[in-house]
Amino acid sequence: MSNKFHQLPYPTVVVIGGGFAGLQIAKYLHKKPYRVLVLDKNNFHTFQPLLYQVATGGLGSDAIAYPLRKIIGPMPNVAFRMATVQGVNTAQNEVITNVGNFHYDYLIIATGAITNYFGNTNVEKYAMPLKEIAESLDLRSNLLQEFERVLLTKTVTGTQPELNFVIVGGGPTGVELAGAFAEIKKNVVPHDFSELDPDLINTYLIEAAPRLLTAMQPHLAEAALQDLTNMGVQVLLNTLVTNYNGKTLYLKNGATIDTNTVVWAAGVKGNLINGLEKAVIVRGNRLKTNEFNVVEGYDNIFAVGDAAAITCAEFPDGHPMMASVAVQQGLHLAKNLYRLSKRQPMLPFVYRDKGSMATIGRNKAVVQTSMFTLKGFFAWFVWMFVHLLLLVGFRNRFITLLNWAWSYFSYKGAIRLIIRPYVSKYQRAAQPTGYGITAPQPELV
Amino acid sequence: MSNKFHQLPYPTVVVIGGGFAGLQIAKYLHKKPYRVLVLDKNNFHTFQPLLYQVATGGLGSDAIAYPLRKIIGPMPNVAFRMATVQGVNTAQNEVITNVGNFHYDYLIIATGAITNYFGNTNVEKYAMPLKEIAESLDLRSNLLQEFERVLLTKTVTGTQPELNFVIVGGGPTGVELAGAFAEIKKNVVPHDFSELDPDLINTYLIEAAPRLLTAMQPHLAEAALQDLTNMGVQVLLNTLVTNYNGKTLYLKNGATIDTNTVVWAAGVKGNLINGLEKAVIVRGNRLKTNEFNVVEGYDNIFAVGDAAAITCAEFPDGHPMMASVAVQQGLHLAKNLYRLSKRQPMLPFVYRDKGSMATIGRNKAVVQTSMFTLKGFFAWFVWMFVHLLLLVGFRNRFITLLNWAWSYFSYKGAIRLIIRPYVSKYQRAAQPTGYGITAPQPELV
Repeated sequence: MSNKFHQLPYPTVVVIGGGFAGLQIAKYLHKKPYRVLVLDKNNFHTFQPLLYQVATGGLGSDAIAYPLRKIIGPMPNVAFRMATVQGVNTAQNEVITNVGNFHYDYLIIATGAITNYFGNTNVEKYAMPLKEIAESLDLRSNLLQEFERVLLTKTVTGTQPELNFVIVGGGPTGVELAGAFAEIKKNVVPHDFSELDPDLINTYLIEAAPRLLTAMQPHLAEAALQDLTNMGVQVLLNTLVTNYNGKTLYLKNGATIDTNTVVWAAGVKGNLINGLEKAVIVRGNRLKTNEFNVVEGYDNIFAVGDAAAITCAEFPDGHPMMASVAVQQGLHLAKNLYRLSKRQPMLPFVYRDKGSMATIGRNKAVVQTSMFTLKGFFAWFVWMFVHLLLLVGFRNRFITLLNWAWSYFSYKGAIRLIIRPYVSKYQRAAQPTGYGITAPQPELV
Repeated sequence: MSNKFHQLPYPTVVVIGGGFAGLQIAKYLHKKPYRVLVLDKNNFHTFQPLLYQVATGGLGSDAIAYPLRKIIGPMPNVAFRMATVQGVNTAQNEVITNVGNFHYDYLIIATGAITNYFGNTNVEKYAMPLKEIAESLDLRSNLLQEFERVLLTKTVTGTQPELNFVIVGGGPTGVELAGAFAEIKKNVVPHDFSELDPDLINTYLIEAAPRLLTAMQPHLAEAALQDLTNMGVQVLLNTLVTNYNGKTLYLKNGATIDTNTVVWAAGVKGNLINGLEKAVIVRGNRLKTNEFNVVEGYDNIFAVGDAAAITCAEFPDGHPMMASVAVQQGLHLAKNLYRLSKRQPMLPFVYRDKGSMATIGRNKAVVQTSMFTLKGFFAWFVWMFVHLLLLVGFRNRFITLLNWAWSYFSYKGAIRLIIRPYVSKYQRAAQPTGYGITAPQPELV
C-alpha cells in the first residue's frame, strides 16, 4: 500500500467513533504530530438531533449524514477504517474489530450512546429505537405503511392498532417526534390520505416523570405540554410502560394501547466496549474518567462525550449526554493530546453550558440557556438557526435549509417514501413472506 | 370507510403500475367519469433514467422518487393502494394482489420492464441490476464498500477483485454508469481514498454487439466510445458474458475478470403478470396489443409502455422500451378512455419520436432526434435540461439541479453514504455474519 501514513514517525491515536467528539478530534489533530485512525461502523457522521426529521419525512438521510472521508480523506496524518469494534485488548494495546486488530498508543473511546431499554427485553424486541439513520428510515417506512395498511380495512374506527402511534419518553427527542407526528396528522394525512379521517389518528407521548423535558425549567416544560396538547397529542405523565408484545402496549396503571408503532425514546446509555475493567463502568454504562478524560486505572485510554463520565460535584453522574458536551470534550482532549506532544501538562476539562432546546412544531419551540429562556416563534427560529450551524458541511446546511423552507411554505414534509418497507419482528413472525402490508378483503372497488 | 370514492357512479379503471404511463393516466383521468385505482408495489414513482446517479452518489433517492400520493391524494376519483400484483382473473375481472383482490371494469397493465438475464441464472443470482431505487442504493453501498475493503489488504496490486468494476451492456444505462464510474475514479478516489492509487482501478464496459448505443447513429456511438476510452474505461465490444459466480466473470472469448461488482445493464423484458393467455406474450415478454392498446383477445384489458407491443411495420416488436413511449401511450390511452365515456370512437396510437440521448460524463453527451444529432458540451446541456424537465415535481427538479450544480463545481458527488451495507449472495454464503467487509491483517497501524 503506497501510503505515507505508515511512515509517519508519530504515536498512533485510535479514535473509536466518528460522532460529535470523534470528528472534533480528527479535525483538530490534522497536521499535528500524531497518526490518527478513526474507526466507525458507518462511513458517515450522523447528526443525531435531526433523526426525528428523517423519520417523519422532513429531511432526506443525506441531509444529516456526512461522509467521514469527505473530511478525513485529504488529511495525510488521519485515516479512516469502516469497522465494527468488538473489544479492546489493553495488555496488547490493540482494538479488536470485525476487520482485524489495530494497534494504538493512545485510545480514545468516543462511542456515544445507545438506546436504553432498562432491561425490558420485550420492548427491546418490538419497539422502534431512533439513534441511527437506518432506524429513522425504518420509522419513516413504518409510519407510511401503517396509513397504507389501514386503508385496506373495511371500516376504520379509530380502535385499529394502525392508527395509534405511541412515543415513550418525554425528553427532547420524544417531544420533537410527537410534534412532528401531530403535524403529519394535520397537514399530510388530509392531502395524501384524503380517504382517512384524521381525527381517528391518536398520538400518545408517554413519560414516567411528572412532567416533560425534565432537564429544562418547569415553565418551558409546561409550554411544551400545552403546545403538544393543543396539537392533539395525548400526553400521559406519571405513566410507566411495563410491556409491549408488538401488538399491545401495557402500562403500569393497568391501561393498554393497541398499537403497531411504539417508538422508544425513553433513555440512552453509554455504548460500552468489551475488555475494560468492570470497575470503571459507572451509572448509565459510562466510563469513569478524570478531568483529563483519562479512563480510571489506565494511562493511555481516554473516553469522551456520552461514553464518558467525568464525575464532579455539579455532575455526580457525569455531564449531560448531549452533543454540545461531546463537542467540547472532543476538542478539549485533542488540545490536551497536542499539549502532550509538546511535553506540556494537560488541562482539566471545564464545561460551558450552551443550553438546551426542543422544537415542538411549526413556530413552536423552547430554548433554555444559562442566561435566558425562550419559547414560541423566536425560540423556534433560534432552534433552526443553531441546528443549521451545527450541521457538518455547507451542502448539508443548504439542503436542510431548502427542505425546511419548502416544508414551511407547503405545510408538508416532502419525503414520504417507503424505499425499504419495514417489517417488525411481530409481523415477521406472523406473516413470514409479506412486506409488512397484508390484510384481506379490500372493499375499495 | 368514509370515502366518496365508493359512491362514484362510474366504471372502475385499475392501473397496475405508477411509472411513466400509469402516472399520465392518473393525471389525465382526474375529474373524468371513472373511478381510477392505481396499484404499485412502491408508494412512489421512480424516475428510472437517473437511477445511475443515485448509484454513483450524485443524487439522493428522494430527488428521483416521487410519492404517488402527493399527486393522487387530492384527486377525489383516483385512489392508490400499495400492493404487489400476483395475477389477474380475467373471468372474474379481478386483480389478485398480496393485499387482496380488486375488481375492475377496465384493466390497464402499465407494469413496465424488469431486468432480463436471458436465462443465465448465475448472473441473475450474483450480478447487480439497476431498475429500482433500492437496487441503486445497494450499488452505491457496494461501490463504497469495495474501496473500504481494499484498504484493509496488505498490498494493493490492481489484481484485487475489489478494484475491478464491470458493467455489462452498452446501452444508455451502461454508458452513463461507466462514465460515472470513471468520474469517481478521477475525482472522488483521490480525495476520499487518498491512500489508494486510482490507476489500480479498472472499469470495464462489456457489450455483445460490435458497437455501443445500438439504437443511436454510428457516429454518436463512436463519440461515446472515444469519450469513455479517454476517461479510462476499458470498453470490450463483440464480447459475450457466459457466467459469473460472484467472484469471477467468464467471457465467451475465454478471458476472465476477477470482480466483486458486476452490474447487469444488458437488457430488459416486459414485467408480465399471471393470468393472461400465453398467446398474447410476444418477443421480450411484452403483451401484443392493437393500436388502441387493447390486449389481443380481450376487450377490457389494455397494456401500455414497456409492457405493451403495438406491432407495426416500423416496429415489428413494438415501440422502443423507453420513457417517452410510455408517456405518449399512457396519455393517449387515457384520452381514449375519456372518448369511450363520451361514446366517441377511440383513436389509434401514433408514435412521435422524441429522440434519445446518453450522458457520458462532465460536459460530454450524445443526443439524437429525428431532426438533428448533437455531441459534446451542448448535448450534455440538452441532456440535463430535458431530464430536469421530465422529473416529476418542482421540489425534485430543484433539488436535482442543486445537486448537479454542486457536483459540477466541486467535481464530486456528495452522497457517498453506506446507509445499509450491501451483502452479495456470494458474500452471504462465504461470511454469514459479516456486513460485507471482512479481511484479516490490517497493516495500517
